[in-house]
Amino acid sequence: MIETPSLVDQYCHGVLRTELGLGTFEAHLSHTEGPPAPGTTLFDTQTGFAVRRWCPPLLGLEPHCAPARYLARRRELGVLESGRRLLRGSGITTYLVDTGLPGDLTQPGEMAGTGAAEAREIVRLELLAEQVADTSGTVESFLANLAESVHAAAAHAVAFTSVAGVRHGLALAPEPPGPGEVRGAADRWFAGRGVGAELSDPVLLRHLLWSAVASGLPLQLHAGLGAPGLRNDRTDPILLTDFVRATAGLRTDLVLLHGYPYHRQAAHLAGVFPHVHVDCGAALVRTGARAATVLAEILELAPFGKILFSTGARGLPELHVVGARLFREALGRVLGTWVAEGAWSLADAQRVAGMLASGNARRVYGLDRP
Amino acid sequence: MIETPSLVDQYCHGVLRTELGLGTFEAHLSHTEGPPAPGTTLFDTQTGFAVRRWCPPLLGLEPHCAPARYLARRRELGVLESGRRLLRGSGITTYLVDTGLPGDLTQPGEMAGTGAAEAREIVRLELLAEQVADTSGTVESFLANLAESVHAAAAHAVAFTSVAGVRHGLALAPEPPGPGEVRGAADRWFAGRGVGAELSDPVLLRHLLWSAVASGLPLQLHAGLGAPGLRNDRTDPILLTDFVRATAGLRTDLVLLHGYPYHRQAAHLAGVFPHVHVDCGAALVRTGARAATVLAEILELAPFGKILFSTGARGLPELHVVGARLFREALGRVLGTWVAEGAWSLADAQRVAGMLASGNARRVYGLDRP
Amino acid sequence: MIETPSLVDQYCHGVLRTELGLGTFEAHLSHTEGPPAPGTTLFDTQTGFAVRRWCPPLLGLEPHCAPARYLARRRELGVLESGRRLLRGSGITTYLVDTGLPGDLTQPGEMAGTGAAEAREIVRLELLAEQVADTSGTVESFLANLAESVHAAAAHAVAFTSVAGVRHGLALAPEPPGPGEVRGAADRWFAGRGVGAELSDPVLLRHLLWSAVASGLPLQLHAGLGAPGLRNDRTDPILLTDFVRATAGLRTDLVLLHGYPYHRQAAHLAGVFPHVHVDCGAALVRTGARAATVLAEILELAPFGKILFSTGARGLPELHVVGARLFREALGRVLGTWVAEGAWSLADAQRVAGMLASGNARRVYGLDRP
Repeated sequence: MIETPSLVDQYCHGVLRTELGLGTFEAHLSHTEGPPAPGTTLFDTQTGFAVRRWCPPLLGLEPHCAPARYLARRRELGVLESGRRLLRGSGITTYLVDTGLPGDLTQPGEMAGTGAAEAREIVRLELLAEQVADTSGTVESFLANLAESVHAAAAHAVAFTSVAGVRHGLALAPEPPGPGEVRGAADRWFAGRGVGAELSDPVLLRHLLWSAVASGLPLQLHAGLGAPGLRNDRTDPILLTDFVRATAGLRTDLVLLHGYPYHRQAAHLAGVFPHVHVDCGAALVRTGARAATVLAEILELAPFGKILFSTGARGLPELHVVGARLFREALGRVLGTWVAEGAWSLADAQRVAGMLASGNARRVYGLDRP
Repeated sequence: MIETPSLVDQYCHGVLRTELGLGTFEAHLSHTEGPPAPGTTLFDTQTGFAVRRWCPPLLGLEPHCAPARYLARRRELGVLESGRRLLRGSGITTYLVDTGLPGDLTQPGEMAGTGAAEAREIVRLELLAEQVADTSGTVESFLANLAESVHAAAAHAVAFTSVAGVRHGLALAPEPPGPGEVRGAADRWFAGRGVGAELSDPVLLRHLLWSAVASGLPLQLHAGLGAPGLRNDRTDPILLTDFVRATAGLRTDLVLLHGYPYHRQAAHLAGVFPHVHVDCGAALVRTGARAATVLAEILELAPFGKILFSTGARGLPELHVVGARLFREALGRVLGTWVAEGAWSLADAQRVAGMLASGNARRVYGLDRP
Repeated sequence: MIETPSLVDQYCHGVLRTELGLGTFEAHLSHTEGPPAPGTTLFDTQTGFAVRRWCPPLLGLEPHCAPARYLARRRELGVLESGRRLLRGSGITTYLVDTGLPGDLTQPGEMAGTGAAEAREIVRLELLAEQVADTSGTVESFLANLAESVHAAAAHAVAFTSVAGVRHGLALAPEPPGPGEVRGAADRWFAGRGVGAELSDPVLLRHLLWSAVASGLPLQLHAGLGAPGLRNDRTDPILLTDFVRATAGLRTDLVLLHGYPYHRQAAHLAGVFPHVHVDCGAALVRTGARAATVLAEILELAPFGKILFSTGARGLPELHVVGARLFREALGRVLGTWVAEGAWSLADAQRVAGMLASGNARRVYGLDRP
């Protein structure tokens, strides 16, 4: 029996503050381009089935009850109370929250209060730069303000995160761009943008990455299925190899988020490069009943001291619950099987479980630093 | 106990009409470039072992009997009678038959008669175009006749299928080619071709794809290991992303065939785009004893309303049997395990089994339309 | 109960002759770029856990004992005696040894003596060329001496091996380079190199590959995770497709080593091309408790007569032990399960086990030729 008493969710978002109907709830179960196909529903997915398995009992219903019944009960309790019950039932004791998404999502402080847990902020580089651009009159002031903002963020956040892979693809030139190059790219972006325009210029994306690396804070890189993007194979983490090599020895940790279906590649990088770590967890929310296998695939090549749990949850507290429960169950099943087969000792399995659940994240993000 | 009472084989071919010896039978077990290596036999493959498992009992022999004994019994019964016993023992009640392969294969009507089932036609775009070219005197008449033929096919067929990935690779420009571009490409192809030459020009392939999309009939796209081709990674369905995005909202369904070993990518596209569906089944015939795992990998990301069974069988009725039996057994094992673990409810599992086995295909191909 | 009485390790290296401390032993468990991350150890990997499972009992300790205790016992016995106990406990009866690595590693003769087994040499093409260059005064003599050395090696070695994928990537032009092209590339390489410089010019790498093909000896190609390289996706064996097609029918066997995480692609090539074979085994040392699954993935597409066992072990005799034990256990579990499920007959399973363990290697490398 492998136990994981405490969970650090190393990457998630806040939850929605508004009451949800069946359709709006369903839309948050998955990242799609367009509504469900006629005759189908997003509840008929691994995520939908996992929500129906784990969440109804936390609201006093039987597992696998019909979506409409679950939603009715959720509205009956109200978004606040159902959020409290769900987050407190997840087993997560620390949330690291990426605050860089649009929409009315709870901030780290509210996550802590609602979930009776600790919460810390992750700063999304691209949003930071877009916000700085919105309030900077000139390219010079944009670049100066950006440097200052990254510096200020490094003082209070636990990590930076980047969606460069989704915006442009991970096949970025590995070295830091020179000042003239950055200035030129900023000129072009500034000239062409309206307020709120997305930053997707590869030179500016690289400038952000290297600014983060220079700060010394861990840098989380979205890879694989983390977010809907241009084309998924352009987010294969193996494309980061040269960037990873260029940042070796600089004392900044890199954390590859999501990874799936390229999680074996992400695990490979964590195995080869001392400063690279891999997420496990966010892929589990998507793959549901297959969580144990996906987790086991990550455990093939990644050193056990380099694997970190997360939920990647966004919008629905149900996704935090599902991420945490699937991870715990999958970890217990995978490691328990290896112990039963004699491949691992029980003591090792318990030690490794603690590392993945919280120990590695506490070390990488310095959560125990005063 | 998960049951799948009726199977719609959404993609297969007819069977050979001639008696087969050991060597010719063996050659149809696999797609190879050249004869088996000295000292090896294609019976020593997952497909070969699966045929030996499932087919001998349908001809009155014990499972796993030696290939020579099986072939002797097959000849003793005759190709017609053994074909009847095999197809009727497969559990398939509807065959959707791609008639676009060379060789003396049975047509949909004969498949229906032999298998005591229904059968409908799938039209292969590239063969249609080659046939039109063979009977058109000029490029003008070719293009006009092609438009007419596509229109006529759409009236009686249930789907179009394309092997553009095998002929050229799936990294095709996503937008429809302009009329001048099509005309130029047709000029060049017409000038250079002999009768029976293969169509592999990327502009003409795109013209065919868009002609099919315009017809409104579902369009099946070969991806992954469907057929021996130039280089397998050029058939990764993720390369279709931009084409998929370009065809969104046009009310034409796309079905990604085969997929393996890129089936997780195909499943991803089915998860993101409402009009994309994925095949499961053809990969099972190739992977035999591993069918449950391959099926489960497809079930990770693909919404359950978007997954369709097929055998992809060609030439040997044994392959229809193996595809159907492996699918049924794999589905029962995968879903049954999830029910036993509490991850899924039994009612959901039975409902999903029916969707994959026939329901989704009936909806996508409009098989219940009068 | 599937038995594999004798194992031919079709690809490995010699072992270190010096006593090892905890840190130097740890460094040989994995291929990394840099020391373990602070707070982590390479013992906390699948390879580390597998070593702790299988090796302590061969030195009289309990499984899973602490690394320091194991290393103390190893030093107490001495490097020679512990090497004897380990290699003789591996179950390997024939070692095919790649002698082309730097470092003080035992040669085939010593492997045979220490392991009470047979041993034969595999010649690494790139090292052969570098050694010839070191002793050739001119480009003309280099090319002439190289031809002679390849010819001489073919007379005593059982195979050639190439790390062209690691040095340059496997996306090499498929055809043999012309004499002028080779001469020009050799000129440039000769002009720029110091003694001991690595050969990574693509024209010269292709010249080596084709020289090996012409010799008729089996040619082993590193693919996937075999060795740390430039970027892992450039070693996807599917990139070899055109080279494979170009060498078909020449009566020279190709063997794809390692493969993982692209082992399904390697298996595909073995399924399509008569002269292509795939390694299984080296990936198992890396993936430890997951060995059964990785092996099963190779068994999906690769014909059973084309799959060859190896350990890929290097430096530590512990890795030969782990490779052999993991393979035997994984093979027994995978095939045993298929027999239990009725998918395979027991007789077939035993026959296939013998093929993978030794029979295929004996045939491909002509080990029974007088």
